[in-house]
Amino acid sequence: MAIADGIQTADWKAEKHAPVIESPDTVKSGEKFSISASVGKEIPHPNTTEHFISWIQVYFRPEGEKFTIQLADSQFTAHGASAKGANEGSALTEPAVTVDVKLKTSGTIQALSYCNIHGLWEAEKKITVS
Amino acid sequence: MAIADGIQTADWKAEKHAPVIESPDTVKSGEKFSISASVGKEIPHPNTTEHFISWIQVYFRPEGEKFTIQLADSQFTAHGASAKGANEGSALTEPAVTVDVKLKTSGTIQALSYCNIHGLWEAEKKITVS
Amino acid sequence: MAIADGIQTADWKAEKHAPVIESPDTVKSGEKFSISASVGKEIPHPNTTEHFISWIQVYFRPEGEKFTIQLADSQFTAHGASAKGANEGSALTEPAVTVDVKLKTSGTIQALSYCNIHGLWEAEKKITVS
Amino acid sequence: MAIADGIQTADWKAEKHAPVIESPDTVKSGEKFSISASVGKEIPHPNTTEHFISWIQVYFRPEGEKFTIQLADSQFTAHGASAKGANEGSALTEPAVTVDVKLKTSGTIQALSYCNIHGLWEAEKKITVS
Ligand SMILES: [Fe+3]
Ligand SMILES: [Fe+3]
Ligand SMILES: [Fe+3]
Ligand SMILES: [Fe+3]
Repeated sequence: MAIADGIQTADWKAEKHAPVIESPDTVKSGEKFSISASVGKEIPHPNTTEHFISWIQVYFRPEGEKFTIQLADSQFTAHGASAKGANEGSALTEPAVTVDVKLKTSGTIQALSYCNIHGLWEAEKKITVS
Repeated sequence: MAIADGIQTADWKAEKHAPVIESPDTVKSGEKFSISASVGKEIPHPNTTEHFISWIQVYFRPEGEKFTIQLADSQFTAHGASAKGANEGSALTEPAVTVDVKLKTSGTIQALSYCNIHGLWEAEKKITVS
Repeated sequence: MAIADGIQTADWKAEKHAPVIESPDTVKSGEKFSISASVGKEIPHPNTTEHFISWIQVYFRPEGEKFTIQLADSQFTAHGASAKGANEGSALTEPAVTVDVKLKTSGTIQALSYCNIHGLWEAEKKITVS
Repeated sequence: MAIADGIQTADWKAEKHAPVIESPDTVKSGEKFSISASVGKEIPHPNTTEHFISWIQVYFRPEGEKFTIQLADSQFTAHGASAKGANEGSALTEPAVTVDVKLKTSGTIQALSYCNIHGLWEAEKKITVS
């Protein structure tokens, strides 16, 4: 049972767990640009002490290269836990992150997200580096 | 030698390691808003295979509450490592992250950042929740 | 309100949140050895979907050096979350981790732990490197 | 190009990147036991400022269940970086971690590791819970 067997995919407009990657379609080599990765953009995912999106990892697979590069790993850690009881806490972190990167080759941006109940989900987006 | 003894602070306009927190000064209770935390906004910090900002953790200390809440932990993981040699890789992740949160009380947003050579640095910013 | 203001300390034999560091008192320079960091060794800390120890970060401050080095960051991520309801899940991760390190100078090992309700706690242990 | 396409596997006795999972073959339901995950057990992997194993994530896929559970995420963060130059620093973190878990059903333990140059690698081990 490989890890891949547990990585789910779906149309993010229909499935609240499917991550969405937002970035330019084309960037210049070495030019800084932003990548946003989020879950729940179309259909919000719950954010409660018992049920939440825990993290999103962003990867990049350069075209023609053999190895995947991890760009970022973002943990969303506040879900309302409190001494007064579940969901009574003062803060919630939503499952969205924006990071800034510089790339030298075209390739595929990949997002891997994790729901503490519903497991692993992924999405990808091609990017052209000129 | 407590961990606090190693947490450095400085004016971000003069010190490239000091993190910067950007957020609204006032938000409504339960309303989603963005917090950006970054290092190198005024004076860029190196981003090489040998020397880089590794991560930024974002915390929140609600006014009048006893415990610190971790909002996010963002790892910046691409620094040009490559089989062809240091700094020959296809990707760099810059030390900046934007996350979305919802707060119920006023308090202090805190950012803790880590340089793989120069250690821990922090910054804080008060936020009013109405 | 600095991050340090929220880092709590206590006698681990009396306080269930205080982390414990276990390692040799003396090691040889460059010799691999294990460091265990845990919470709840004397008085167990709850491990439920609503209340758990989320992570332990291990740091090292070399004697006579200016900067703190992060040795490890270990996230304990299974707390019984389930589609059947809180605490019905198949796995729990306890707040304990053992990592292997090599040191070149004497100094202080530091552990920083985080409870999703009760915040940040730390402990330290001196180690001699001969 | 799915993330799975970049997850490599190999015989750990012949490939230094392949992670190894060590745990009992059978445990009792709810009984605490240790899982060790490491890279380089047979053939050591380099641990230099320019080339290192960055992290190991441990997952569990319960038999008959639909979702993968993340047990732990352990970052190995010291690789000799120093103001005096690469590899001059006082600490190295080796790619090995031991965590303690409790399981309620049989299933497959999975380890995902990441080399900053050579990308993602995985291993699995079945465990019976009686
Ligand atoms: Fe879910
Ligand atoms: Fe630096
Ligand atoms: Fe607690
Ligand atoms: Fe490698």
